[in-house]
Order: sequence, then C-alpha cells, then structure tokens
Amino acid sequence: MNSGDGPYSYAKYSSYQKAIVDAAKKMLVEAISDNLDINNPSFGSSNTLRIADMGCSVGPNAFIAVQNIVEAVTLKYQSMQQNPQALEFHVFFNDHVANDFNALFRSLPPSRPYFAVGVPGSFHGRLFPKSSLHIVHSSYALHWLSKVPKEVMEINFLGLKNRRNYSTADEVLEVFSRQYKRDMQSFLTARAQELVGGGLMVLLVVGMQNGAIFSQTCSGMVFNLFGSCLMDMANVGLVSNEKVYSFHFPLYYTTPKELGALIETNGYFNIEKIEILARPVEHESPDYRICSFHLRAAMEGLVEEHFGKEIVEDLFERYTNKLEENSFIFDEEYRKETHLFVFLRRKITEYSSEEKPEAEIGSEE
Amino acid sequence: MNSGDGPYSYAKYSSYQKAIVDAAKKMLVEAISDNLDINNPSFGSSNTLRIADMGCSVGPNAFIAVQNIVEAVTLKYQSMQQNPQALEFHVFFNDHVANDFNALFRSLPPSRPYFAVGVPGSFHGRLFPKSSLHIVHSSYALHWLSKVPKEVMEINFLGLKNRRNYSTADEVLEVFSRQYKRDMQSFLTARAQELVGGGLMVLLVVGMQNGAIFSQTCSGMVFNLFGSCLMDMANVGLVSNEKVYSFHFPLYYTTPKELGALIETNGYFNIEKIEILARPVEHESPDYRICSFHLRAAMEGLVEEHFGKEIVEDLFERYTNKLEENSFIFDEEYRKETHLFVFLRRKITEYSSEEKPEAEIGSEE
Repeated sequence: MNSGDGPYSYAKYSSYQKAIVDAAKKMLVEAISDNLDINNPSFGSSNTLRIADMGCSVGPNAFIAVQNIVEAVTLKYQSMQQNPQALEFHVFFNDHVANDFNALFRSLPPSRPYFAVGVPGSFHGRLFPKSSLHIVHSSYALHWLSKVPKEVMEINFLGLKNRRNYSTADEVLEVFSRQYKRDMQSFLTARAQELVGGGLMVLLVVGMQNGAIFSQTCSGMVFNLFGSCLMDMANVGLVSNEKVYSFHFPLYYTTPKELGALIETNGYFNIEKIEILARPVEHESPDYRICSFHLRAAMEGLVEEHFGKEIVEDLFERYTNKLEENSFIFDEEYRKETHLFVFLRRKITEYSSEEKPEAEIGSEE
Repeated sequence: MNSGDGPYSYAKYSSYQKAIVDAAKKMLVEAISDNLDINNPSFGSSNTLRIADMGCSVGPNAFIAVQNIVEAVTLKYQSMQQNPQALEFHVFFNDHVANDFNALFRSLPPSRPYFAVGVPGSFHGRLFPKSSLHIVHSSYALHWLSKVPKEVMEINFLGLKNRRNYSTADEVLEVFSRQYKRDMQSFLTARAQELVGGGLMVLLVVGMQNGAIFSQTCSGMVFNLFGSCLMDMANVGLVSNEKVYSFHFPLYYTTPKELGALIETNGYFNIEKIEILARPVEHESPDYRICSFHLRAAMEGLVEEHFGKEIVEDLFERYTNKLEENSFIFDEEYRKETHLFVFLRRKITEYSSEEKPEAEIGSEE
C-alpha cells in the first residue's frame, strides 16, 4: 500500500473506503447501543476501554471509524446514566510492519479523545495479550490474504500459460478460497483470545453477493484488465511471461454466506448481524483516471516488488486507457461487489489454550 | 536523533548507552526482586503485565532493557513459585512523534517474549490511561528537556553576544535548571497517573556528581568545544552570529541531590534507590572520531533543523579536530558525569485528579 502523502498515496485516494466507513456509522452506533453490556465485569472492572483497529493503513479512515466507536460507547454510557468522564479509551492501530507508521502517527488527530498506539504485525496472528481488548474494528482489510498461496504457482506453471484470463481460472479461485478460509480461521481465533468475554467485533468486509462469480463482477473485470495490460507488455517484451504468470494480488472477495459459515465453524463468536451495506453513491460517472489511481494507491507496492520500479508508469498508463476503452464494466449489471457489515460478539466462555494451537507472538508471516 | 540505520545513525553509535544498560542490569534484577509485590491486587488481577519504555529511540538498547525487565519479573514469579507461563507481557515503546518508529518496528527482536506496540508523543505529558502500567523504564532520555526555554533567547540577545562560552553562563544554566524542574514535575505527575499503586519506575539518568559545575565536566567541555566550532564558522561568515547565539541543545545534567529533591517535592513516589552507576569501562583511549560520531548520532537532527543541512559535514569535521586538539578534556579529573540508577515505587494512594491539573492527551509540545 502506498505510504505517506505522495501523489499516489493511499490516504489521498481512499475516498471510496471513507464513504463505506461513513455508511457504516449509523449501523455501528445502533449495534454498539444494542450490544455493549456495560455491566459485564470484563468491561466494568477497569476505567479503560481498549479498542483495536486491524489494518489501519496510514489513516484517516481508521481515525474516523475509531471516533465513531468512541462516540457510540460514550452515548451508550450516557444513556445508562453512567458518567463517561471516568472512562478512558486506549486505541491500538494495527497494520503490517511495512506500513508507514511514521505517517500514521504524524496524522493522528491532535485533539483526539483517546490514547493512541501503533501495533506492528500481521492480524492473522496474535498481537495482544489474552482478554485485553473490548472492541475490535477492521474496515476494508480482511479481503487481503496473508499471502498468495503457494499452490497457485504450480497451477500457473502447469497449465495456465496459454489462458488469457489467468487469474480467474476455477483452480486458482479454489486455491484462493482455501487460503481465505485458513486466514479467517487464524484471524478469528487470534481475536477470540484477545477479546474479553462479551467483547465486540465490527468488521467491514469487501465481498460479493451470494452466488456471484468473481470474473463477472466489475472488480473481477478490473483485475482482469490489469492482468491483460501485463500480458500486452509481455507480448512486446517489456516484462517476461514468467513474471506475469507468477503475479497475483493476495486478495479474495468472500460472500455473506461463505463468511457466515466460516464464523460459525470457528465457533468463538455469536453473529449479531451480517448485513449488506448500500453501495456508496458515486456523484459522477466514473473518472477512469481516478479509478486507476485507486488501484495504484492500493497495489503499487506489490507491483513494484514483483516487477521492479521501471514498469510502473507505463503499466498504469495502459491500465487507465483500458479502463476507458472498457467503460461497460462499470454498468449496474456488473456491480455485484458488496460491502458487508459484520457485528460479532465474543462468546462468554473462557478460551482454552488446549482447544487449538495458539498463534505465535510477533509472527509477521 | 538520527533515525534508521545510516552511517551516522543512533542505533550504530549508542554502544556507550548500551554499556550503561548492561551495567544497570544487575541492579535492575535485584531491585525488581526486592520490590515487585506480586500479591498487590493491581498486579495480580490480570495476567498481563504492562511495561513502558519512555524515550526508546529506534532500539536496540530499549529491547535489551525490556528483555532484562521481563527476565527479572519472570525470575521473581518463579522464586515465588508462581507459574510465569500464565503471565503475558505488553510492552509500550514510547518516543516523540518524530522518532523513526518504522525503523524501530523493523528491528524488533523476532522471537520476543512480549507483545510490542509503539507510543508516539512527548513523555512530558500523559500517554496512557490511568493506572494502566505496572513498570515504567527510561534510559538515557530524561536529560532531554521538552524544549529550549524561551527565556534563554532573551538572555542571549541582551547580554551574551560577546561571551565565548555562551552556553555555560550562570544565567543560562539557571534558566535550564528551572525548565528541568518543570519537565521532571510533568514527567513524574504523568507517570504517577499512569502507574498502578505500587507500580515501579526504573530510570537511568545521565547527570553529574553532587557539587560539580557543568562547564568543568568533560561533557560540558565537549559542548563548549562544539559551540566554539560554531563561533569559528560565524567568524569566517559560514553561519550568522544570530544563528549561533540562538542555538542550544535542550539538555540538562542533573545531580543525585537535585533529582532526589525533585522526586520528594513531586510526592507521588517512594525513592527505593538512587545510586551512581560505575562508568562503563573504555577499552581503549578515546577515539575522537567515534566521540564525534556519538554526538552526531544524537544531535545532527537538531543541528540541521536550526542551521540547515549544508553546514553539517564541515561542522562535525571541525568538531572532530577540536576534540583531538583538546584531548585533555577526557582526563579523569574532568569525568564528573554520572549515570544514576533511580528506582521508584508509586505510592499506594489513589491519584486525585483535583490535586493537580492533568496533562492533555496527545500533547506533543
């Protein structure tokens, strides 16, 4: 993810995600009001409420989300005629070690009503002591896999060299789906250990409608167009075929049905709500340059790491042009992506460390 | 402070500080063994022990100190036949927002026995919720003032233009001493709020022997030599006189007597120990280039900020030469700096927020 505040930075081009966070605000306030049990001794035994944001990037969306949570909790305390003055908030902003925490810290709201810290490390492993968090939040982050699964490389080299839409082949999707299941299992189990009994988890998850096929969604086509730009560049010798075949974004778009089943299988959480958020209103017809910027903000780092810096400008120029030529992909019939609002409550049973192996402290990969 | 791991980085040239941390290890283990009361309900009510390192820079000394504390606490639990397996450590590494937290996070020990986070902000203000810390540590950081006191500028411009040893004038020292008192008061009061009753604070503080006069210590002479290099550069027109007169390092070397009195006046802590550490053994006669590197590692940022990047190389070259010409300053008779090992225990009385105004959350200056 592009760090800092440069011309293609994530902070500048994440307005779409901000719209999602805004859309979720009403649901969040309602859900916290309905589900926060301030008489639960795990909440009441200290005057500190600890909130973690998983996959915070460099802000500002994480700051807005946290502000919403703090306001919702404060409202709840007021409505119960408890004095929220006595309550202090400790907020933990998490992202990968490679995240630009310096930029995050510089942009923290100066008059924030909470104490802020940064937590480096993968949210697919343990990051906090047991029963130390009250509310976990994650927005627009859980579609990132912990890695591109190894098996996908074998599939590519064995059979996919001649396919154009290489990233949408069924075998590849299946392998990605298995990786997603493993990752979500790790994520949920780690958070189950870290949350107090009765603790809350708010997830905003990018995914697809039940029954949708990724390659037939706007997002799937966007990624295929991106792949085809790489193929074009390989065809004229600007990058090698091997480089192209071995490149995948570590992303997966789940469905409400699949995600619900994964949470049930995990077993540590009660599902209080899984709802599809209304898609953010787009004020104008899509500006292809801005769309390209969005992808670049999120993906440039991965592209550079795999192909080197040299091809970036050319690649994104080609990509912007392809988006313009293929504007039909933004038509309503292909907009089958969804943003899921998921509200979970940690079951009030002691976590037994014998049930499942624990994730290691500080494991980044 | 120079960030990252470049040629003049703090991480590479803080071996002297490492020697101090090593020298303090034995005292630390003893003090924790004598003073950690694991039957204190503030410690025992959770299985998480929270440790903060104030002024951590980019490591690795902070990591060594934290490792020492974790080992000492674990030993104590073992000696009391408590199972330290059940105990988890949450470690908060604090420094200014301008610290290179990205470098800090990259260099965290991969198999550390604790969960690590970064805390941006000045340790002269509040950084943590009330009663949330069990052990606070700070090494080689408390001689930094929160700022160069404003009054010092007035003194300089009114009367000091013609003095060569401008930074050692009595008036200036007096103003710095007042700033140090204010800063230590803020530091102690903030930590008193953040520590649990009975919580421990370990401070390694650079200072001077009781009765020493700063300008007659090796360190005082080192800084005066540095100042005289700036005067030389002003005399040949490389920097302006005004720039030189208005430049001060925000540093203050206290004495055991002064520091003890400040802690007593503050009133929130019992002094369990204030001891002078043996000076680290220097294996060879001082290498002037390394001494210069040390100062450069700690101070280059401040110099650049005030004078600009252009003069840095020239200035430190002159400074290295001056150190060589004036090697007498390293003679034993001038080594009146001390490293103080200070071990405090938060009094077990509830902090009343009416006693003193509270520091604001997130106040960086």
